Amino acid sequence: MTSTRVRMSPDSRREQLLALGVRLFATRSLQDLSIETLAEEAGISRGLLYHYFGNKQEFHTAVVQRAADDLFAVTAPAGDGSPLEHLAGSLERYVDYVAENYHGYISLLRGAAGGHEGLREIYESSRAALTERLFEAPVAQEAAAIGLTDTPAVRLLVRGWAAFTEEVVLEWVRDSRGITRDELLVTLAASLPGILAPMLEG
Amino acid sequence: MTSTRVRMSPDSRREQLLALGVRLFATRSLQDLSIETLAEEAGISRGLLYHYFGNKQEFHTAVVQRAADDLFAVTAPAGDGSPLEHLAGSLERYVDYVAENYHGYISLLRGAAGGHEGLREIYESSRAALTERLFEAPVAQEAAAIGLTDTPAVRLLVRGWAAFTEEVVLEWVRDSRGITRDELLVTLAASLPGILAPMLEG
Repeated sequence: MTSTRVRMSPDSRREQLLALGVRLFATRSLQDLSIETLAEEAGISRGLLYHYFGNKQEFHTAVVQRAADDLFAVTAPAGDGSPLEHLAGSLERYVDYVAENYHGYISLLRGAAGGHEGLREIYESSRAALTERLFEAPVAQEAAAIGLTDTPAVRLLVRGWAAFTEEVVLEWVRDSRGITRDELLVTLAASLPGILAPMLEG
Repeated sequence: MTSTRVRMSPDSRREQLLALGVRLFATRSLQDLSIETLAEEAGISRGLLYHYFGNKQEFHTAVVQRAADDLFAVTAPAGDGSPLEHLAGSLERYVDYVAENYHGYISLLRGAAGGHEGLREIYESSRAALTERLFEAPVAQEAAAIGLTDTPAVRLLVRGWAAFTEEVVLEWVRDSRGITRDELLVTLAASLPGILAPMLEG
């Protein structure tokens, strides 16, 4: 005789708990994201959660890594289009992601900048992966037309542009200053060519 | 009968110790900047230092505030010139300042981003003061020609541009990637008009 209830594998169960953790993380800081909170929301024992995640630090790292993977997935360039069209689409989904996950995102930034090595690694890898797309082969030729060639100088400027975008989007989500989402998106999409333009001329 | 040795007032003595603290801070992190180190370098007792600075946290705050004031002073626009010439001059001195005070600067950023409220306030005020200059009256009319008008949208972009500049300069100091100081300065000076250009067209 077997049970009619579907039994989840440990991996699926862990995935489900991790997804719940990411949802909780969207609206609170890492500090407020405890295994106790997750246990309460999931309706299971703390002991079982420690079985899946080891300790609080490992739990936090797993949640943040999953959140970074989600961000990477939602900002993937979709369909055909020029590099600028891809950029505009990715930026649109980045802005919406930050707006929906503001508290968790801020918390990740503070942790990464404040010297938490695990968070810093996730943050750096995530930003590197997001900007690496700009240099990918299928669009490289068209990209060169806006100054997006794969040189150390351009990579340095792209890194700076990522910091610019992060700062502007976080500040806009915190206080929109009467700037509409569309106005923000137009300005963000134009900023990368604007920053790179001197390289084309020089 | 008075002593022939010049006696420093407590204020002058504190100033002198603070200047020494800033020099030490240039090449080490806040964590490594202890009252013990300062006592050793100044050749005075720890007790006297505690008399001047209260505790380690107050000492750190005083050193960082002084470093921020120094940065503001060295980057002051000098002489006549267009907004872009002033910007280029200020950026040149900013780059040199960061290069000379790299470890202290990184340490300030990490402390500010990591949730140390005293450091965050100094950092935010310092960046606000540095960018506020861009909107100052004497050059406002010429500045408008490059899109630098005093609107919430432009202020948001200038804030983002400050994050861009900080990121690019810190990364360049860490690893110049074969980019010369002159190349860096040309690109930085052109980046602000580049970011603002879409506002002029829109």
